[in-house]
Amino acid sequence: MELPEFRQQAHKMVDWMADYLENIEQLPVMPQVQPGQIRSQIPALAPQAPEAFEQIFADFEQQILPGITHWQHPAFFGYFPANSSPPSVLAEMLTATLAAQCMSWLTSPAATELEQRMMEWLRDLLDLPTAWSGVIQDTASTATFCALLTARERATAWQSNRTGLQGQPRFTVYCSSEAHSSIEKGVRMAGLGSDNLRKIGVDDRFSLQVAALAEQIQADRLAGFEPLCVVAAFGTTGSTAIDPLEAIAALCQREGLWLHIDAAFAGSALILPEIRALAKGLDLADSFVFNPHKWLLTNFDCSAYYVKDPQALLNTFAMTPEYLKTDQDDQVYNYRDWGPQLGRRFRALKLWFVLRSYGAEGLRQIIRRHLSWARQLAAMISEQPDFELLAPVDFNTLCFRYVPTGVDSKEALDQLNETLLQTLNMSGSLFMTHTRLNGVYVLRWVLGQTRLNWEQVMKAWQIVQTTAHGL
Amino acid sequence: MELPEFRQQAHKMVDWMADYLENIEQLPVMPQVQPGQIRSQIPALAPQAPEAFEQIFADFEQQILPGITHWQHPAFFGYFPANSSPPSVLAEMLTATLAAQCMSWLTSPAATELEQRMMEWLRDLLDLPTAWSGVIQDTASTATFCALLTARERATAWQSNRTGLQGQPRFTVYCSSEAHSSIEKGVRMAGLGSDNLRKIGVDDRFSLQVAALAEQIQADRLAGFEPLCVVAAFGTTGSTAIDPLEAIAALCQREGLWLHIDAAFAGSALILPEIRALAKGLDLADSFVFNPHKWLLTNFDCSAYYVKDPQALLNTFAMTPEYLKTDQDDQVYNYRDWGPQLGRRFRALKLWFVLRSYGAEGLRQIIRRHLSWARQLAAMISEQPDFELLAPVDFNTLCFRYVPTGVDSKEALDQLNETLLQTLNMSGSLFMTHTRLNGVYVLRWVLGQTRLNWEQVMKAWQIVQTTAHGL
Repeated sequence: MELPEFRQQAHKMVDWMADYLENIEQLPVMPQVQPGQIRSQIPALAPQAPEAFEQIFADFEQQILPGITHWQHPAFFGYFPANSSPPSVLAEMLTATLAAQCMSWLTSPAATELEQRMMEWLRDLLDLPTAWSGVIQDTASTATFCALLTARERATAWQSNRTGLQGQPRFTVYCSSEAHSSIEKGVRMAGLGSDNLRKIGVDDRFSLQVAALAEQIQADRLAGFEPLCVVAAFGTTGSTAIDPLEAIAALCQREGLWLHIDAAFAGSALILPEIRALAKGLDLADSFVFNPHKWLLTNFDCSAYYVKDPQALLNTFAMTPEYLKTDQDDQVYNYRDWGPQLGRRFRALKLWFVLRSYGAEGLRQIIRRHLSWARQLAAMISEQPDFELLAPVDFNTLCFRYVPTGVDSKEALDQLNETLLQTLNMSGSLFMTHTRLNGVYVLRWVLGQTRLNWEQVMKAWQIVQTTAHGL
Repeated sequence: MELPEFRQQAHKMVDWMADYLENIEQLPVMPQVQPGQIRSQIPALAPQAPEAFEQIFADFEQQILPGITHWQHPAFFGYFPANSSPPSVLAEMLTATLAAQCMSWLTSPAATELEQRMMEWLRDLLDLPTAWSGVIQDTASTATFCALLTARERATAWQSNRTGLQGQPRFTVYCSSEAHSSIEKGVRMAGLGSDNLRKIGVDDRFSLQVAALAEQIQADRLAGFEPLCVVAAFGTTGSTAIDPLEAIAALCQREGLWLHIDAAFAGSALILPEIRALAKGLDLADSFVFNPHKWLLTNFDCSAYYVKDPQALLNTFAMTPEYLKTDQDDQVYNYRDWGPQLGRRFRALKLWFVLRSYGAEGLRQIIRRHLSWARQLAAMISEQPDFELLAPVDFNTLCFRYVPTGVDSKEALDQLNETLLQTLNMSGSLFMTHTRLNGVYVLRWVLGQTRLNWEQVMKAWQIVQTTAHGL
């Protein structure tokens, strides 16, 4: 494709993009397709000859679009959102066009320095300690893996990087039973073994019980293990529960454990001063992650990872083979040394566009609105005798279920609510997901989409009630 | 930013993008900026109030663009290219707009099924075994890490994932002394220890010496180590050397070792039937990675990872917490279980657009042209008495240096060529990088950019000669 055709097709694409976003509410949030249906429409072999872009794009509309789950639909209430916004999409257009590799300072100085600055902007917006240093990772999974590896290496004085874990102490890692699966995945990848991940019990707010954590650490020491790291949640995935960070931090300091805080979703709310009281103790962490690509209007992937001691991170990951050496290595950040991957996209640009387009106040307003709507909706659900909330609503995630009179057994209620979720999602009008809290099946309703408005919430609540009553 | 403004700004952006690509040759390939210069122009704090997009974009042009290394410039000859192309950029615009999370089938069925199909298309285009299964990873670093972890887990019957590496055998991993740094990084992250990575010597073509590999494996067994995995290169980073895959594969089969093939850059050339003879034995590998985001016109990130036994990969990475369970889990691919990260972009779309827009023949033509130009340029360099090639040119990477009469010592030649590279890159007319082969400093000239043409090559060769003679 030559550039004149690119210009023409890209203009058409822009109109399609704007139309898509303008009309997204007319689309079913979740597609009604069967496994294998999309793949069967796509030829088994690549074409030999070039095809016209008109044909390719027509196939996109006819074959791909009907199989897309519309994460940017205002009635997308599932998982956690993966938000975008117009300025973020504009930045992604530039990023794709420049297509610069941002592994080293030299491979695009502006990308590295803008990333430094954006990590400073976010640090100050969230009121994180000014001494912390930040880097953009792709996902919180990767950031948590970085934390676990750095903890592992610090504990062995960087010996295990050189000689392996064989012969090292049996390290143990701690999180709550509500913590994210990426912690267990990271523990496995790091060679620590998931049997050595202690999932500590939670209280009735689904927050980690510090007394149980302290006991487990002592028991492990007595049994010959070496406690290594605690991963505390500021907003669990199930119900956005907040672990008692201050008490955990004090314990970690006393015991000499690494403290990593996983604030993947809820961390964005720390741009609100009124939320920061919930995060007391956060400044005592060794590392911290939150995802602007979830709730801060910035396209995936953009996970902000902060560390107290960047040198420990560098000692864990840095590698400079001859072909990557540059004259500036002593004076600059080479972000490839701050995580697992060598290649890196220019991800800071979209943060810059978003933070400036909305301004801190604009972003605060959006998040405040989501929190306020969640409180109002929580009150409405609580008022209905045949619905119940099953977790505190500290942020904008509601865990609820339908409890009609006459259905009493746990099994029957679980089954009923599973059917409710399926029916709701099959309707195409909204999309929610589920989890289990204390073994109980609950629907998760997250009010965090960029384009969400109160009308959508009320419409969805009406649909939830009508659907439930019609079961 | 509301959608009408987005539409308007995105149209302006498209014209900027097309203009940028049309006029890219007028820009210096490498920017002339000092460390800290860009960052100092960006305010220390995020703005409180929204800013106009016109202002943001003006700052992009004035503050960021002058600090960008232009990877899409036809005279970008450094590292390996990170190519894009017009259809790939169009796909990235859609990907950013849909902004769908592609972690599970349900979270976007079309994304998963298109990824399956694209991995089949690429597998057949490269003539890889039809029994192999593929997944898009972000980088070859991640793919190689996946291979190392799967090898580790297979060797311990998935015990080390559960109980950790403490108490497991002391595993050893093998690659050549020319292999990529990501292997050592992966060995470290996996807890195997870089002391247990054996860097086997190379022959005069910089290919791994199989006899030395066999000896090292025996010596390690005698010393109580457990040989685990060989990572063989199809195109090293230094000089695109090819390890003797067939002999290595036979050895791995005899010894029961995992064979991973790193074809990150050169793998794209396997779309040419005439190249496949160089890769004899490749079909005996356990895993294989190549990066369409390098030489196949597809934007970063898009690394194609193939495995013989997907179940072994799944057993290593799969985790399904309650909140990720879906009704279709038994019938579908959930690609989050095929690698370290949970979140995933819709990366298959750009492959689909590129493979159809160019067609297999169109892509073959581009790669054939690069290979042919490299051969012609290699002949020209060889003919000049004051230049020399220091490695075979099997693909399109030339390792050369300036050797004027009268400069004889290695140190003086190294210094001279370092100065030559600096001077060339400072000119802005072209960009190359360097490496060392047998300790000798060489310039690396890679003829692989999407927009490269023979005129550019000849212009650059003229500049290289003139600059060298002027030193």
